[in-house]
Amino acid sequence: MSALPNDFLHDATRLTEDATRPFPASRKIYVEGSRPDIRVPMREISLTPTKTRDGIEPNAPVTVYDTSGPYTDPAAHINLLKGLPALRAGWIAERGDSEPLKGLSSIYGRIRAADDKTAHLRFEHIRQPRRAKAGANVSQMHYARRGLITPEMEYIAIRENARLQELRESYEQAGYLRRMHAGQSFGAMLPKEVTPQFVAQEVARGRAIIPANINHPELEPMIIGRNFRVKINANIGNSAVSSSIAEEVEKMVWSTRWGGDTVMDLSTGKNIHETREWIIRNSPVPIGTVPIYQALEKVGGKAEELTWEIYRDTLIEQAEQGVDYFTIHAGVLLRYIPWTANRMTGIVSRGGSILAKWCLAHHQENFLYTHFEEICEIMKAYDVSFSLGDGLRPGSIADANDEAQFGELHTLGELTEKAWKHDVQVMIEGPGHVPMHLIKENMDEQLKHCFEAPFYTLGPLTTDIAPGYDHITSGIGAANIGWYGTAMLCYVTPKEHLGLPDKDDVREGIITYKLAAHAADLAKGWPGAQVRDNALSKARFEFRWEDQFNLGLDPDKAKEFHDETLPQEGAKLA
Amino acid sequence: MSALPNDFLHDATRLTEDATRPFPASRKIYVEGSRPDIRVPMREISLTPTKTRDGIEPNAPVTVYDTSGPYTDPAAHINLLKGLPALRAGWIAERGDSEPLKGLSSIYGRIRAADDKTAHLRFEHIRQPRRAKAGANVSQMHYARRGLITPEMEYIAIRENARLQELRESYEQAGYLRRMHAGQSFGAMLPKEVTPQFVAQEVARGRAIIPANINHPELEPMIIGRNFRVKINANIGNSAVSSSIAEEVEKMVWSTRWGGDTVMDLSTGKNIHETREWIIRNSPVPIGTVPIYQALEKVGGKAEELTWEIYRDTLIEQAEQGVDYFTIHAGVLLRYIPWTANRMTGIVSRGGSILAKWCLAHHQENFLYTHFEEICEIMKAYDVSFSLGDGLRPGSIADANDEAQFGELHTLGELTEKAWKHDVQVMIEGPGHVPMHLIKENMDEQLKHCFEAPFYTLGPLTTDIAPGYDHITSGIGAANIGWYGTAMLCYVTPKEHLGLPDKDDVREGIITYKLAAHAADLAKGWPGAQVRDNALSKARFEFRWEDQFNLGLDPDKAKEFHDETLPQEGAKLA
Repeated sequence: MSALPNDFLHDATRLTEDATRPFPASRKIYVEGSRPDIRVPMREISLTPTKTRDGIEPNAPVTVYDTSGPYTDPAAHINLLKGLPALRAGWIAERGDSEPLKGLSSIYGRIRAADDKTAHLRFEHIRQPRRAKAGANVSQMHYARRGLITPEMEYIAIRENARLQELRESYEQAGYLRRMHAGQSFGAMLPKEVTPQFVAQEVARGRAIIPANINHPELEPMIIGRNFRVKINANIGNSAVSSSIAEEVEKMVWSTRWGGDTVMDLSTGKNIHETREWIIRNSPVPIGTVPIYQALEKVGGKAEELTWEIYRDTLIEQAEQGVDYFTIHAGVLLRYIPWTANRMTGIVSRGGSILAKWCLAHHQENFLYTHFEEICEIMKAYDVSFSLGDGLRPGSIADANDEAQFGELHTLGELTEKAWKHDVQVMIEGPGHVPMHLIKENMDEQLKHCFEAPFYTLGPLTTDIAPGYDHITSGIGAANIGWYGTAMLCYVTPKEHLGLPDKDDVREGIITYKLAAHAADLAKGWPGAQVRDNALSKARFEFRWEDQFNLGLDPDKAKEFHDETLPQEGAKLA
Repeated sequence: MSALPNDFLHDATRLTEDATRPFPASRKIYVEGSRPDIRVPMREISLTPTKTRDGIEPNAPVTVYDTSGPYTDPAAHINLLKGLPALRAGWIAERGDSEPLKGLSSIYGRIRAADDKTAHLRFEHIRQPRRAKAGANVSQMHYARRGLITPEMEYIAIRENARLQELRESYEQAGYLRRMHAGQSFGAMLPKEVTPQFVAQEVARGRAIIPANINHPELEPMIIGRNFRVKINANIGNSAVSSSIAEEVEKMVWSTRWGGDTVMDLSTGKNIHETREWIIRNSPVPIGTVPIYQALEKVGGKAEELTWEIYRDTLIEQAEQGVDYFTIHAGVLLRYIPWTANRMTGIVSRGGSILAKWCLAHHQENFLYTHFEEICEIMKAYDVSFSLGDGLRPGSIADANDEAQFGELHTLGELTEKAWKHDVQVMIEGPGHVPMHLIKENMDEQLKHCFEAPFYTLGPLTTDIAPGYDHITSGIGAANIGWYGTAMLCYVTPKEHLGLPDKDDVREGIITYKLAAHAADLAKGWPGAQVRDNALSKARFEFRWEDQFNLGLDPDKAKEFHDETLPQEGAKLA
């Protein structure tokens, strides 16, 4: 019997059928690693045979990378009240370098835990937070640099390969390996096959990160780096005008269903703390946040009242909940702010403008910059990765690639080196709004000044004249910058600049970014990426309609579009 | 009193209000040229002032290129039964090199004109067709090469400039000219200002075409070439399973409303001839067709029964109706066909497969290739432009840039030279499905082997795994290839590969391509292209919501998306 009120329970414990039903003609498979507790989920799409004059030729099933977690596994028992199984708990514990705490370290966390008014919203099964033992560093980078290959790294190697090596023969027979294009990767060094050693090398070098807080043992490990598959992020989050906890959990599940590799919780409304707990406990993908948003709520929205202490407490609060990466706008330096004065659109990053306001109010350097080393100490105690925020990103085509933007980028490079001295994982956030011919300069500057730390970009939007279609203006930029070397693309929905995305918008944004990321993988020459295109093209050419739908990123929409105008099976076979 | 039946009249004479209402805060303006009958339509978007602490600062109206014809002009009297005013009639007549014919030259045209069964569908006000006088050549290329600057060329120069020079001062004051990026045009030579002389030079050189049949005097002249704004084409057309004449006229108007620079009528159903007449008589934009589609209907769908005579009669029939460009698959040579055998998706172009079938059935060379000189004679008698079809374009990522595709491209280059000897205008069709890193090779090969004749591409689609989202997979490719130098982008709708597009799909496809073309213009550095982005960005930054909607490509959708989630004016001003 739960202590939660019935109506809340009713909402919070049920996901819609839309968000959880298995994909058509698909089954969840688990590929086992070197030990039985490494079980890497993938989706296998089975196909119908080809009818030829001489009879029937089978078409080998296609295995695809799967971000949807246990939700699409009919054999999994989902209980949102308890959260997902802690699949990494054993790995974390056996490393012996962290320990469960007696209670929460953050003041705010303790206050909320004891708050009667929010008790009815609280996730019940909160486990003890873990933290590195004194002097220890629990980051995957630290392990990699010491030559350790963690179960997370092995898991990722298996996952990135998506059984290409195992299936090579059947793929060859089915004709999926005909005419595989070589790709042009602009200096990325894609492996022919991902090994755990390769994962470790890339993480040690800082060229890839594994966002995996030790307090988020539920997550299925994944990697972000230019020598791996291009990833995408989806944003969710409640705000003053919208949505309950139940809705946010649903959105997170919905996002991972369609292909979100990570999810950022950008909540700014009430009960941020409680919402986040529900999301993390039920999330199979890394969760990112922008801690300054919550810190600002704590000071009643007044930027000038922010302090390092409040911010620090927020970092610890969130780290102990299990947030996997923090957007931290430590590169918004006092001296860059005047450079934005003559811009067309000033400072458009919310985090950036909060910090600019603080800096100007106090005539002091950004406290995230001045306290950066202390932040690193927190990050390595939980293995939270930096997502160094681009607070001065251009908010319009006009402002692209200006001195404020690149000034901040250079500072982010300096901070990358500092974080790496602590063996703390780093990725770098990027713009924004950039015309096509200036996109590559963003990538080149980032690679150069941030030493190949993974780039994580929003879009970029390639024109400002299409409100209502900014998933597309930005999808164009995202595909290009992904090709040039960006490791993760932050999605944009059709509602960008206009309103809050609903479920349809989220799906539209994710699929747009998924196809952009895949287009980038193809262009870079990711091994085996083309198998899915080839299998789908073969199905298309042979009028195997159901196979064509099922191999697509969005089988539901493909089928719906088809049935709308050509309803009969006869027509489908025409 | 019309002889047409009432129910047909009712449908055919009314456009929906959706398709014709003027754009918000916009007025149609006409810029006069060197003579009073050169009146170039543009759309002027007026903006609200900026509220500053010191009072109010006006924002100059923004002038945009306008493809929508008289339909969005409240002062225009639209009568679909009579068609649009023949604004070029005087220009054509005064050149003295063409003459009205006594009747239709094509056998089929005469049969249909006398056919009682279709009388009730027939456009009533068919004027006498015109043809070049014996020995004359009425192509714009011919004029340009003789040093003539036609009213069409002057019209185009004014149109391409969109009043940038005249408005420079007010744009400067309003801040729209701040930080204009220079662009990277890959060897295109964009002018700082388009002059009639420049238009003539580009047409003479074959680097641009003005599709403008002398039997389509209603059209508002436009140009397709890499040194001009990137254009887009929208396809319409009825088929066995859908749509009436009224619907096709509505679709044409609808397409030009959202930005279609040309429209292809790909009808394959009944009454193709009559439908086409209605479309052309009411179309302010050039109309393209694929004559082999109709020729095939005439032989009951049996490709092997096609003959040069039937095809030739079809060309003349359509040329005398006023079709402005013909897709002609003259490059599908017998020797290339075996090269498609090992493809993933064989031959996917409908025209290409019709001709391949014919070639194989007869063991003869493609009759469009062998009769090419005779086709040129027809083209120059009416000024129909070639759109040399890519019958062997790749239908999948796997087949991109293969020998069949490039073999055909080389033949199209050879044919371009032949057509140019006749002073006949040519553009070249391009693929298809191409991964991003292989797109540039398409452009480079086309420029080289087709001597910079304008490239006109379908997409290309950059991945095959997103049925239902192929406007986006292809919009990415379109933006890139437009940047590299493609002159016109043929749109793809979300229904591509799945079904027939409805009005919403057409709008979605057009806006996607319009934004891709604009992204290409920005990247190339088209003079003044960024004005609209800057004006919109300024409105966005100043929370002038209505201005932001009105400056966008689709004000209706932007407004709708906004109102959905933030309904109050108060919130909009927040």
